[in-house]
Amino acid sequence: MALHSQAQKDQACLIVHGPDRPGIVSSVAAVVTRNQGNIVSLDQYSSDPTGGDFFQRVVFSRPDLTVALPEIEADLGRTLEPLGLAWTLTDRSVPKRMAILVSTSDHCLLELLWRHRRGELPVTIPMVISNHTNTAEDVRSFGVPFFHVPSLDPDKSHAEAQILKLLEGNVDFVVLARYMQILSPEFLDRVGVPLINIHHSFLPAFIGAAPYRRAKERGVKLIGATSHYVTKDLDEGPIIEQDVARVTHAHTATDLQARGAYVERAVLSRAVEWHAEDRVIRHGNQTIVF
Amino acid sequence: MALHSQAQKDQACLIVHGPDRPGIVSSVAAVVTRNQGNIVSLDQYSSDPTGGDFFQRVVFSRPDLTVALPEIEADLGRTLEPLGLAWTLTDRSVPKRMAILVSTSDHCLLELLWRHRRGELPVTIPMVISNHTNTAEDVRSFGVPFFHVPSLDPDKSHAEAQILKLLEGNVDFVVLARYMQILSPEFLDRVGVPLINIHHSFLPAFIGAAPYRRAKERGVKLIGATSHYVTKDLDEGPIIEQDVARVTHAHTATDLQARGAYVERAVLSRAVEWHAEDRVIRHGNQTIVF
Amino acid sequence: MALHSQAQKDQACLIVHGPDRPGIVSSVAAVVTRNQGNIVSLDQYSSDPTGGDFFQRVVFSRPDLTVALPEIEADLGRTLEPLGLAWTLTDRSVPKRMAILVSTSDHCLLELLWRHRRGELPVTIPMVISNHTNTAEDVRSFGVPFFHVPSLDPDKSHAEAQILKLLEGNVDFVVLARYMQILSPEFLDRVGVPLINIHHSFLPAFIGAAPYRRAKERGVKLIGATSHYVTKDLDEGPIIEQDVARVTHAHTATDLQARGAYVERAVLSRAVEWHAEDRVIRHGNQTIVF
Amino acid sequence: MALHSQAQKDQACLIVHGPDRPGIVSSVAAVVTRNQGNIVSLDQYSSDPTGGDFFQRVVFSRPDLTVALPEIEADLGRTLEPLGLAWTLTDRSVPKRMAILVSTSDHCLLELLWRHRRGELPVTIPMVISNHTNTAEDVRSFGVPFFHVPSLDPDKSHAEAQILKLLEGNVDFVVLARYMQILSPEFLDRVGVPLINIHHSFLPAFIGAAPYRRAKERGVKLIGATSHYVTKDLDEGPIIEQDVARVTHAHTATDLQARGAYVERAVLSRAVEWHAEDRVIRHGNQTIVF
Repeated sequence: MALHSQAQKDQACLIVHGPDRPGIVSSVAAVVTRNQGNIVSLDQYSSDPTGGDFFQRVVFSRPDLTVALPEIEADLGRTLEPLGLAWTLTDRSVPKRMAILVSTSDHCLLELLWRHRRGELPVTIPMVISNHTNTAEDVRSFGVPFFHVPSLDPDKSHAEAQILKLLEGNVDFVVLARYMQILSPEFLDRVGVPLINIHHSFLPAFIGAAPYRRAKERGVKLIGATSHYVTKDLDEGPIIEQDVARVTHAHTATDLQARGAYVERAVLSRAVEWHAEDRVIRHGNQTIVF
Repeated sequence: MALHSQAQKDQACLIVHGPDRPGIVSSVAAVVTRNQGNIVSLDQYSSDPTGGDFFQRVVFSRPDLTVALPEIEADLGRTLEPLGLAWTLTDRSVPKRMAILVSTSDHCLLELLWRHRRGELPVTIPMVISNHTNTAEDVRSFGVPFFHVPSLDPDKSHAEAQILKLLEGNVDFVVLARYMQILSPEFLDRVGVPLINIHHSFLPAFIGAAPYRRAKERGVKLIGATSHYVTKDLDEGPIIEQDVARVTHAHTATDLQARGAYVERAVLSRAVEWHAEDRVIRHGNQTIVF
Repeated sequence: MALHSQAQKDQACLIVHGPDRPGIVSSVAAVVTRNQGNIVSLDQYSSDPTGGDFFQRVVFSRPDLTVALPEIEADLGRTLEPLGLAWTLTDRSVPKRMAILVSTSDHCLLELLWRHRRGELPVTIPMVISNHTNTAEDVRSFGVPFFHVPSLDPDKSHAEAQILKLLEGNVDFVVLARYMQILSPEFLDRVGVPLINIHHSFLPAFIGAAPYRRAKERGVKLIGATSHYVTKDLDEGPIIEQDVARVTHAHTATDLQARGAYVERAVLSRAVEWHAEDRVIRHGNQTIVF
Repeated sequence: MALHSQAQKDQACLIVHGPDRPGIVSSVAAVVTRNQGNIVSLDQYSSDPTGGDFFQRVVFSRPDLTVALPEIEADLGRTLEPLGLAWTLTDRSVPKRMAILVSTSDHCLLELLWRHRRGELPVTIPMVISNHTNTAEDVRSFGVPFFHVPSLDPDKSHAEAQILKLLEGNVDFVVLARYMQILSPEFLDRVGVPLINIHHSFLPAFIGAAPYRRAKERGVKLIGATSHYVTKDLDEGPIIEQDVARVTHAHTATDLQARGAYVERAVLSRAVEWHAEDRVIRHGNQTIVF
């Protein structure tokens, strides 16, 4: 729960998941202990202690972690694989590389850039890609490279190819910070890293286009925003975070959009921070958020 | 904004609506003034000052209101009807008569009964009607009559006829406090008073049955409740109030239902209070809430 | 996180705290595992992994728990005491016994009684004690004994002695559900069980009497409530839970009190539930809430 | 309620306050009507319809407003002054001029600059003044002049004199966006325009220095921020807006400060927007916010 901006040198994050059974916690903790690790934080969840799925996130510190990593990984393999458990071990001194895709709206983009500059997002930002140019100057003022990839051709395949080429090998995840182009299934097949989107409604309400206009027409008293992993089913991916704001009859659809922008940037920022800290585990079409 | 429990003797509530045009406020205020009224509170809303719809709620005090009412009504007719404005005038010393329909869940029912006993709902409760008997004792302990109308026959028409007979002439509005029977269009045609429902989701998400189970399956991070006027289109009536509560991956569908109950009773109570105080004006499929 | 109303037979709750050091998690988990326990949930917190304080709550299931308890306790003693760790082990099939002290306001009292009847508070309620009689009938309608102990004498010592006699040996904790008498230091010395209070302000704002009146005078835009353990320093005990509600200039002090009642009952209910589930650990004048 | 970014040409905002009495609404509305105005929105509040204080905010449109203003003002004087009512009339096509004073923290400053660029604050920003230089580049990138006025001398009178000289005649109000210098009573006497401050606690809790550290020590479960008008009594001025965020035992004082920054910028932005739109009326040490 301590903020990421604190020292993370010599810290590792271990994610374990698989079928629940007695003794997992003990086995995992024993691996950490016999490799001179000290557990800093530990969260776990079992969908059912009898026959359910088990999920655990352990952060531990260990002097000279980098040197010890191969041995710890070997030990984890020996210990956890016989129990049928999958695991990933991440060196927390290496920030994740995050690309941002954006169209014309700047509110989510600037919030991420500013939180990053403030030291509150444990990532590097190797690039911002946009199908417009209006945010270029702002992006570059944060010292972040900006690439313009127009989405002009009807089938978008040329633009998507350009984006893939920019991303390939350079990023660990992609954030769609109000990127108003629908990415093709082929793109999603090939991108090879998770994508996080922000949808401007409280999903599953108002799936699809123009949610604020439809919210106004329906006369809702709260508007919302939803951040989720992108899947081939539009607006149907696993939800990471949601929030809402109160509105009244006196707000026009334009007012809803303006108020909603503040919910969107907050929800997306939390989702990005949690993903970057390995707090989010996908489980079917749901997420575990530690 | 002052609580209803304060003296409302010699107070009237005037609702005005119609096409907006210059001079309405002045005309309404002049009627109140020349009839010795003193405006206690005034709220208004115009969907567009040029060519939009105008809505106003004026509470005014006037000594010997009851005696003066016919004359005030005549003045309102003379003044507002030439302007194309509809109006209703309510004597606030006469509480609205509210019937409650309920099935087995008691959380919304008891909350309404308890708030009423506490003096926080400006209504009388001439009856509670249920298709079950489990709440009878609780209801009667509040001094409120309880009627059991089973919903056994497949077409429900007999039960609905019984309910209509109980309600007829005796109530000003009906609250469906988790009444798990779908009322027929014929019932809605004949009941002649507004019905307020509580739906156990954040509409328009999870319209229909089993919203908590579907919320769990979708992996939402907030659950909600919605109070709305009942129309023939199920779950599509004008929304009065909504609210949400935060949930996590660790909550089961049963946990969502338990937490949701607290949102439901709060949302329904606010909707009922506002309706009873003439704060809610229907406008197409939306509401103005003053 | 699963609701208490689910079966807790053959479940134990282990609380561990003491100086943090490597290997604690491993040692605790090993005790559970070698005693045939299966960990159901585990939460932990360290104020600082290097030289800080460590707190852990482990719920585990174990067939025939009651029979095995003495052996598990012996193992815990052998394992944890050499590490300088304090621990308590609770059989979750035995609900805590909760007494409620109340004066005239019924909102917190009825909320607790109703949540208990609904199966949402894992406690028994052997008694309600009041210095007034207005709630007696309601309390008894829930099947709970009601005792009237008037607070008439100036020094209150007679009343306190009567209360102590009623509580002695019969309860595991006491809830002051808007009990408007200040308990003497002698009472607190002798009562021997934790007391949970609800204060009608967002502490440390408006410590002392008449917080709603003073909130109105200060013109705050939010009112709050605070549930805390009772210590000899009035309104200064460790805070368990707090919440707020929005108010405006239009609310009178009486309105604040009426709105505040809903915050109070929610905050106190959560604090009581968490205490009853051993989720709250006192740490100096603060609390860890798992 | 419509957003300020919509056209405000030919719109005026009238604020009326004074002793309540029958007929005020009628008189005010009549002035607007006979001067060809059309009421766009109207809010009012009476602390007590019998002998209390009356407050009203009326926005009205009127073609060729600028030309008609003198006549409308004369009419208001003739009509309202005999009733003992004070009033101010503002041409909404003229945005208020806002100066920002800031120290090193940029979160409130950048939020205001960005909201202004986005068209969501109906102000001009003729200057930002800081006792540090770290925000200069950011400020100027928004096209806003930046002035550095160091606070070096012990009595600060030289710095304050410089600030007064910069402000004099150039601004309509001043925002202290985390300006960490206490302004002298002499400065406040001479500045001649309202000052709005953001305090990093939920006042009146944690008045004075280091509120986040003290919040951590007290173990609160919510942290807050408060925006208020500045008076000679430090942290005691009329509150405009407050909000809170949930925290846990796991947050350090530094974490509270980081989370609190997001509450601060939101609370200050709302207070500034409402002040700029003449929605806030001071009433003794309280505010009416329409």
